[in-house]
Amino acid sequence: MQEIWATWGVDLHVEVGGFRVRAGLESALREAVAGGRLPAGLRLPSSRNLARDLGIARNTVVEVYDQLVSEGWLVARRGSGTTVAQCSSQQDLVRATPAPPTRQHAYDLRPGTPDLSGFPRAQWLAAARMAVSAASPDAFGYGDPRGRSELRRALAGYLARARGVRTDPDRIVVCSGFTQAFSLLCHVLCARAPTKAPTLAMEGYGLPHLTRTAADTGLRVQALDVDSHGATLDDLGDADAVLLTPAHQFPLGMPLHPLRRARFLEWAAAGDALIIEDDYDGEFRYDRQPVGALQARAPDRVAYVGTASKSLAPGLRLGWLVPPARTLGRVLDAMGPAERNADTLAQLTLAEFIASGRYDRHIRRARTHYRRRRDSLIELVRRQTPDISVTGIAAGLHALLQLPPGRSEAAVVARAAKIGLAVAGLNEYRLAEAPRHQPALVIGYGTPPEHSVTNAFARLVQALSTDPAPGPRGRPERSTTREARSTINP
Amino acid sequence: MQEIWATWGVDLHVEVGGFRVRAGLESALREAVAGGRLPAGLRLPSSRNLARDLGIARNTVVEVYDQLVSEGWLVARRGSGTTVAQCSSQQDLVRATPAPPTRQHAYDLRPGTPDLSGFPRAQWLAAARMAVSAASPDAFGYGDPRGRSELRRALAGYLARARGVRTDPDRIVVCSGFTQAFSLLCHVLCARAPTKAPTLAMEGYGLPHLTRTAADTGLRVQALDVDSHGATLDDLGDADAVLLTPAHQFPLGMPLHPLRRARFLEWAAAGDALIIEDDYDGEFRYDRQPVGALQARAPDRVAYVGTASKSLAPGLRLGWLVPPARTLGRVLDAMGPAERNADTLAQLTLAEFIASGRYDRHIRRARTHYRRRRDSLIELVRRQTPDISVTGIAAGLHALLQLPPGRSEAAVVARAAKIGLAVAGLNEYRLAEAPRHQPALVIGYGTPPEHSVTNAFARLVQALSTDPAPGPRGRPERSTTREARSTINP
Repeated sequence: MQEIWATWGVDLHVEVGGFRVRAGLESALREAVAGGRLPAGLRLPSSRNLARDLGIARNTVVEVYDQLVSEGWLVARRGSGTTVAQCSSQQDLVRATPAPPTRQHAYDLRPGTPDLSGFPRAQWLAAARMAVSAASPDAFGYGDPRGRSELRRALAGYLARARGVRTDPDRIVVCSGFTQAFSLLCHVLCARAPTKAPTLAMEGYGLPHLTRTAADTGLRVQALDVDSHGATLDDLGDADAVLLTPAHQFPLGMPLHPLRRARFLEWAAAGDALIIEDDYDGEFRYDRQPVGALQARAPDRVAYVGTASKSLAPGLRLGWLVPPARTLGRVLDAMGPAERNADTLAQLTLAEFIASGRYDRHIRRARTHYRRRRDSLIELVRRQTPDISVTGIAAGLHALLQLPPGRSEAAVVARAAKIGLAVAGLNEYRLAEAPRHQPALVIGYGTPPEHSVTNAFARLVQALSTDPAPGPRGRPERSTTREARSTINP
Repeated sequence: MQEIWATWGVDLHVEVGGFRVRAGLESALREAVAGGRLPAGLRLPSSRNLARDLGIARNTVVEVYDQLVSEGWLVARRGSGTTVAQCSSQQDLVRATPAPPTRQHAYDLRPGTPDLSGFPRAQWLAAARMAVSAASPDAFGYGDPRGRSELRRALAGYLARARGVRTDPDRIVVCSGFTQAFSLLCHVLCARAPTKAPTLAMEGYGLPHLTRTAADTGLRVQALDVDSHGATLDDLGDADAVLLTPAHQFPLGMPLHPLRRARFLEWAAAGDALIIEDDYDGEFRYDRQPVGALQARAPDRVAYVGTASKSLAPGLRLGWLVPPARTLGRVLDAMGPAERNADTLAQLTLAEFIASGRYDRHIRRARTHYRRRRDSLIELVRRQTPDISVTGIAAGLHALLQLPPGRSEAAVVARAAKIGLAVAGLNEYRLAEAPRHQPALVIGYGTPPEHSVTNAFARLVQALSTDPAPGPRGRPERSTTREARSTINP
């Protein structure tokens, strides 16, 4: 009988008498069916016959057949014995899948990520040990849709102290980062105006993927020019909301001018509009203390969003949204009954991290660390490529390197790539309709690990130098009439 | 001068000479403006005068004014000095917010949550220490949209071994739980049929909030009757996809019959439809080994979704989606460039937890633990309320207690609530159009912490007993003609 099986390419491999008999028979049969070696419709020997052939207990075979029937590999019909089921062909189990995104660059100066090698592992683990050991059992459950109260309490204190944010713990919604908070707010805006698509104004330079999030939700997006004072109000029209980066415009780097702050607030009050404040790197200001959050001026108009992605690590997936009080219910509505995105253990750990003072110490250390990098970048560019001006440097983890007229962003980016350095051109952050600014690079000096900063900067200088031909597309970027008006004044 | 300030209700509280002079002055002024005590338009004394009055350095006052101007509290105009800005009224900072959801019940036997007191804290922390200490720095970054490769590798092995799932690590997408996976698949279905709303068939009893997720995405929902063999195919029509709980129907508790499994697979192959397999508690089967995943039969038709919410804890926000190979790209598309929902440190910890064998040991322990509870529930109900039959008990963390004809679900639920016990009636899980089944309770025997199981069960028996009047709504549930047909056969 074993021989007959063998003609089907099936080796039952049964270790007779061993405790693995059943498991061995079962997986051999399952594999044989799944692999297509036992064709659909084939009638299997009766349990009695197979047991005798293999010299094992009949009950073992019965159990194996039952199991495979319940999984659908075999079919048992009264009177016709056990047959192989009609299976979907296993050929379709294609192993070929899209290649994972790989970093082909030895050095990376693209913005958006802090120095990941600086993550305070030991401190974080110590906080996790404290927090998880002391947690009440309900911390492991679904819990409050706003997130853990321990974290909301810690954040309310921290945000008031460090960013001037006016809130109480009950009004904070912990989320998995800026994108979730933004997406929730987009849903709130849409729910507020069910008949027509509401308009969200966005800074003409920003994170382009956010326009997709907004559009997917059903919002119309209006780009605002950004000048040396930050976002302008000219194209606001009757927008229902505006997304701003008041502390440090991303990617251009200037703070929103005080008069503009006031005008946006007046506009929001007049039209009952919402301001979304993306305070992504508000903790990092070098030359003086941070500019307070816009939310502090009008907690009833501004939805404040902060994140641990720049101050600690994006991998934590932790952010916080402080909506106006009257919007909170709608945010939770938009979240729905089942959306809970932030790991509660990470929430408790961050609460402990803040409450114990570890967060402040980490921020202070990181600030010193990044300021040093920023200073060497400025110094290096000033010395080596004096025709390039560095702006947006008062805060954050990135700076803008403005290329002189005639230099092409794309060419510099390509040149850098050739020598193993990833950099981002300013144009990558331009929203579709927004007028072009002068060519520039957005340099995330916070990105590389400490040991490679010097080399990364050296390659940047090399890529910026004009010695050899600047590449195939060396002609100046296309200029528009609006460009002059919206160019950043250095 | 101090006196003049005092008439505005402002106490500057400046500790002269201390290093807190600046911070003190700044926050006193900020508070005074924010609190509305300094009215908009009020002209402040010149920095020179204020410094002299307070006996502090003029530069300190200049810095404070600058800071508050940059935050927008004050306005500085050449020639007109420094004035208080027009602020949005702070009265709107309403502290009243919706009360957090509270548990008013001493005991909870609602399904959906495992015993949270059984979370293996020490083991988890040990795995976290190993994983976080050994992690490469990029683990703290945004990373691969599919999640950490360490976890995907561990899951591919585990799922093949424990659930028969056929995949490789490249095809797994780590997500924040079933709901995110489901929402992504809904988006994929909608993107596939941009002109008309695709139809998703769902079991007539399930988690009603999922119908909202589906509808919000733009899907039409079709309810399927569920009989004693699981979901029926009668109302499938030309649906584009079906959501099933093949291992243990939620909430009715039966496994999907082998013939039905085969028929659903045939249907999917014939119509190029997608089967979404919600394997929420596949690890827990008591009387024999688990029924393998349906996905194993047709990896090209079935999107398998598993979760750590039942096996470990919902708070971890960890789940996994194994889509058909050709659907993977569309899932990542639906995810968008910025959606990453699972904490990478938790991902690495779970990878270590699985790879080190801790997960298997935990599951084995938990299985023994829950089986014991199940057995005492069955025994207790059989002994104390013999007119009630317990079904759906072969697997999972919940059972169905079918009430005898004439008993009202709502009345039993209300009676239980009165004695401090939260239970769920079967009808809570009925989709809008689905025919009613016989009245029943869905008892999550996994939910209570170990020390309170006995009391929770005792109260359940008390609520089920017919001794006093069964409450104000004691009449039988409304019966429909379809009811008879779809009633579960015990």
